[in-house]
Amino acid sequence: MYPLLNRIENPEDVKKLTVRELEQLASELRHFIIDTVSQNGGHLAPNLGTVELTLALYSVFDFPADKLVWDVGHQAYSHKILTGRRDAFSTLRKKGGITGFPNRFESAYDAFGVGHASTSISAALGMALARDAKGEKNQVIAVIGDGALTGGESFEALNNAGDLGTKLIVILNDNEMSIDANVGAMSEYLSRIRIAPQYARAKRDMGSLLMSIPHIGDKVYKTASHLKDGVRSVLVPGSLFEEMGFHYIGPLDGHNIALMEEVFKSAKEMEGPVLIHIHTVKGKGYQPAEQAPEKFHGVGCFDPSTGKSAKKAGCAPSYTSVFSQALIELAKDRPDILAITAAMPSGTGLKAFGKAYPKRFFDVGIAEEHAMTLAAGMAAGGMHPVIALYSTFAQRAYDQLIHDVCLQNLPVTLCLDRAGLVGEDGPTHHGVFDLSYLRQMPNMCVMAPKDEEELRHMLATAIAIPGPAAVRYPRGAGLGVELTDSFEKLSVGKAEVLQEGGSIAFLAVGTMVEQVKEAAAILAEEGIESTVVNMRFIKPLDTALIDAMAKTKKLIITAEENVLAGGFGSAVAEYLADSGQQVPLVRFGIPDRFIEQGTRKELLSLCGLQPEQMAECVRERLSHLAPEA
Amino acid sequence: MYPLLNRIENPEDVKKLTVRELEQLASELRHFIIDTVSQNGGHLAPNLGTVELTLALYSVFDFPADKLVWDVGHQAYSHKILTGRRDAFSTLRKKGGITGFPNRFESAYDAFGVGHASTSISAALGMALARDAKGEKNQVIAVIGDGALTGGESFEALNNAGDLGTKLIVILNDNEMSIDANVGAMSEYLSRIRIAPQYARAKRDMGSLLMSIPHIGDKVYKTASHLKDGVRSVLVPGSLFEEMGFHYIGPLDGHNIALMEEVFKSAKEMEGPVLIHIHTVKGKGYQPAEQAPEKFHGVGCFDPSTGKSAKKAGCAPSYTSVFSQALIELAKDRPDILAITAAMPSGTGLKAFGKAYPKRFFDVGIAEEHAMTLAAGMAAGGMHPVIALYSTFAQRAYDQLIHDVCLQNLPVTLCLDRAGLVGEDGPTHHGVFDLSYLRQMPNMCVMAPKDEEELRHMLATAIAIPGPAAVRYPRGAGLGVELTDSFEKLSVGKAEVLQEGGSIAFLAVGTMVEQVKEAAAILAEEGIESTVVNMRFIKPLDTALIDAMAKTKKLIITAEENVLAGGFGSAVAEYLADSGQQVPLVRFGIPDRFIEQGTRKELLSLCGLQPEQMAECVRERLSHLAPEA
Repeated sequence: MYPLLNRIENPEDVKKLTVRELEQLASELRHFIIDTVSQNGGHLAPNLGTVELTLALYSVFDFPADKLVWDVGHQAYSHKILTGRRDAFSTLRKKGGITGFPNRFESAYDAFGVGHASTSISAALGMALARDAKGEKNQVIAVIGDGALTGGESFEALNNAGDLGTKLIVILNDNEMSIDANVGAMSEYLSRIRIAPQYARAKRDMGSLLMSIPHIGDKVYKTASHLKDGVRSVLVPGSLFEEMGFHYIGPLDGHNIALMEEVFKSAKEMEGPVLIHIHTVKGKGYQPAEQAPEKFHGVGCFDPSTGKSAKKAGCAPSYTSVFSQALIELAKDRPDILAITAAMPSGTGLKAFGKAYPKRFFDVGIAEEHAMTLAAGMAAGGMHPVIALYSTFAQRAYDQLIHDVCLQNLPVTLCLDRAGLVGEDGPTHHGVFDLSYLRQMPNMCVMAPKDEEELRHMLATAIAIPGPAAVRYPRGAGLGVELTDSFEKLSVGKAEVLQEGGSIAFLAVGTMVEQVKEAAAILAEEGIESTVVNMRFIKPLDTALIDAMAKTKKLIITAEENVLAGGFGSAVAEYLADSGQQVPLVRFGIPDRFIEQGTRKELLSLCGLQPEQMAECVRERLSHLAPEA
Repeated sequence: MYPLLNRIENPEDVKKLTVRELEQLASELRHFIIDTVSQNGGHLAPNLGTVELTLALYSVFDFPADKLVWDVGHQAYSHKILTGRRDAFSTLRKKGGITGFPNRFESAYDAFGVGHASTSISAALGMALARDAKGEKNQVIAVIGDGALTGGESFEALNNAGDLGTKLIVILNDNEMSIDANVGAMSEYLSRIRIAPQYARAKRDMGSLLMSIPHIGDKVYKTASHLKDGVRSVLVPGSLFEEMGFHYIGPLDGHNIALMEEVFKSAKEMEGPVLIHIHTVKGKGYQPAEQAPEKFHGVGCFDPSTGKSAKKAGCAPSYTSVFSQALIELAKDRPDILAITAAMPSGTGLKAFGKAYPKRFFDVGIAEEHAMTLAAGMAAGGMHPVIALYSTFAQRAYDQLIHDVCLQNLPVTLCLDRAGLVGEDGPTHHGVFDLSYLRQMPNMCVMAPKDEEELRHMLATAIAIPGPAAVRYPRGAGLGVELTDSFEKLSVGKAEVLQEGGSIAFLAVGTMVEQVKEAAAILAEEGIESTVVNMRFIKPLDTALIDAMAKTKKLIITAEENVLAGGFGSAVAEYLADSGQQVPLVRFGIPDRFIEQGTRKELLSLCGLQPEQMAECVRERLSHLAPEA
């Protein structure tokens, strides 16, 4: 089924192929990727866009002596398949299997681990400087999408690299997309380059394109270099990158292997930093993905012949969609609500808000730092911004949240989607630090709903708070509870007691409420009754409730889908210590190590967060307590 | 002494002045600023550079209806003096006095609080969008230096603003400096604009400059707009900003009030985002500061007639200088050590390293995110980078530290200067979150030295660890202990017991070791003996020591110059709970609110961290413990 691909044991084999063979290999790689992703889920459209690029890179460069850094890394499947991971590729994104992103622990070809956007140029520059320090000569290549280029760190890295002048190759993989359509002035700029006459000419005539590359005898470029900056950009597109100290080459067709091979060979010989601008089609070669690349960016299982999702019907609505609908409803009576996403209109559910209120919706691109300060600015201007980010990406705005939002006590509502263990995307994407870092920040209110209905009320509560408030909720489907059409403002800092009784108390937040209810049920069957509390607020803490529990229970158990260090259970331990109350405490949460990929269920087990595990642990702890403690 | 300045009661008074009077007022403002700063300390050179700019702004715009956002805010003294804070200005940077940065709680004219760099365009855009949403018409102006422009968030904001097209005025205050000389490709680009023929012409002839501003009848610009992008940039410098969707005006002399007034009036009438590029001299008008702007960026008290620092001789060396010297020594035998600063070569002490090892030193500009990933890249390339940042600015790299350094377990040494309470710079600059956020991160080792000699050994320890390690140390002078010329690798995770005895134990980190020693001495005088431990490591925690204390003491006391939420004391509380050990615990640290400005002593008192306060609190707690507890 994959005659050529089956012969590729290592990257050296790629070098032996003719262009025609490479083109066939590209086709086989596409089918192979579609086949695996349709079964395992994963990133599809970005990977279909980079097949030819990957082959051209492996045909020209000598990896792993040369270093290849993929930005974000959701486009590196071909790279993985060509570097000894073809047979293992069926384990993609499974526990113990091939990871969905480059990973230094997985292969020497994965020069740098990624997952978050906009790090590749920085990392590649670091490797280039390390190479220089060691007096070595290898090439270092960063591949970055036009979406990731909008992240400020990319600009910081270009600014530094263009100044230092060391050899570095940046390949700008321009497909006009982040996960959704790319936005921003830079994106407009790249569009202008693409539609410039040079590009059309280049497509017709590879020769004329190569004229613009120095060191291969062109006249145009050399003449242009002596003209004023502005004039040069008429002759050579990409003057913006030239101004930043890069040699610019492009734009060129990122599906033309022969063209890219020629350009890469030339780029190898050039001195200083080089930016090669290629144009690719996200989802290339697979009709459903080409037509709806945002839907096929990251997918679950699907039928490869139709592209239709294999999702079962009747699934509970996702937290994301409940958030989306709730915000639209709340915004009706609150014209001061503005919504912000950082390149995730679909992922955060804000796309629907943007349709309902186009003038009140802002997609700022992959730019979490800016997004947060923008929100602070809006709040300072009298509005109430709601900023929806994935928990893991919100880490980018940690400083802005302290410095711009909390310090000024501005009314900004932060909605953190994909909080907790996210499953198959693995350690770069788990949102397991937020309770800890949010809790440190003065003026911050932090909530986590026990189910999707409570998310509605927490959102209503957050937008009524005259300061910063965060709501964090998990990836995927809700519990399937009934959804009302009302909103209840919760009493800030007040927990909800779900069941009372016994001499032990479970205090849980968010997803763990359901888990501890089950743990309590298991223990109840053994005659161990317990109190179960949905804490709702991680900050402010319901200290009156904790006081009551400390006085009446012989054991308090906390549970959270967050790191144990500094999280909710830590807050309870702090409060008990500070208030001089000595009651045994068991804390469930994410241990102090990075958690791998796997199903959510597998990962919860790994962390000891399944009901039977918690019950066992509590049973054990109880057995060590003095009977009359 | 200040005849004109004394007549300025509010900004309306500025509008009544002629250009000649404004020039005189500029001169008076300069003297007034020098006079105050020489007595109180503060930011001098940046404030001397923006006197004329401030006057031109207040002459043209209607604040506070119009909104003015100063980036970083260390250049806003004239702004403060003109907006009703002249008489209070003598309290600058003192506890309860005028703050050194714009502050929303201080004045309606301070539209947005700042302190960290690169937030102004984001915040101003947020205010502009809030204005649009409310259907209002006021102007929003961001003033940003060329240094702060290198921060990625600025680029993210330009990218967003240029795309949205709403009215916004960005004034680029280009003085070729961050705190030290500015670096990076953007800085080079701005230099090229400055030396372009247009600038010389503009200086000679204001009229020809104004020709380049639309809406005032020029032909040149309108013709240029119809040409290709590149050609336009020959006629109008700043094509890079034009490509980003901004109207570009400049460069112009930022000390020419009349010229700026004209340009600002025109800019008010323009549509869409406008960037006005002005050129100023940092330290303008004060000879010592013009000659050494980096020395006069932020200063302590000095003699205004000579510029000489009023620092007493015989002071102990600063932590910064001890770090600086130690790293130079350690790097002799460790060619793999590379040093990185983010625009703070002087402030972090790395300037000397750069002189000793120019090829191993990297100033990346105000770009903490990039700096951290760059370090990770260097480490992935086999080197051992040492990155020195102020604790408060390291917050910018929170995500990169998790995602690029810790997740990959790369050998990066992070040196956090100005950790803890920094004194007069106030809440934007206190480095009081680092122990909490570093402790959350798997693989991270976190240390704090009790004195400047121990800093040497901790640095030696950090660079010997094959993974991430952080050392955090305070601003200012060390304790004056004897400095050796040797290095001792500390046993990782092992505390140092300083004195043993009694039934209570003080466990302290960093600066608090000295404080608890004094507290212990006070208690000892009353017959309460105690054990005093320098924990050295916040992570990994010396759990064996804690076990021993929990077994033998009736009270454990932790002390840290860090927020109590999630910090060192929190780690001890967690460990005691998790290990089922019940011993009363008192935690000293920064409470859950933002701490104002003041002397370090005043702020320690405010937080209850002075020895007598701690002793009192312990005494009180002991009185409540059962005698046989």
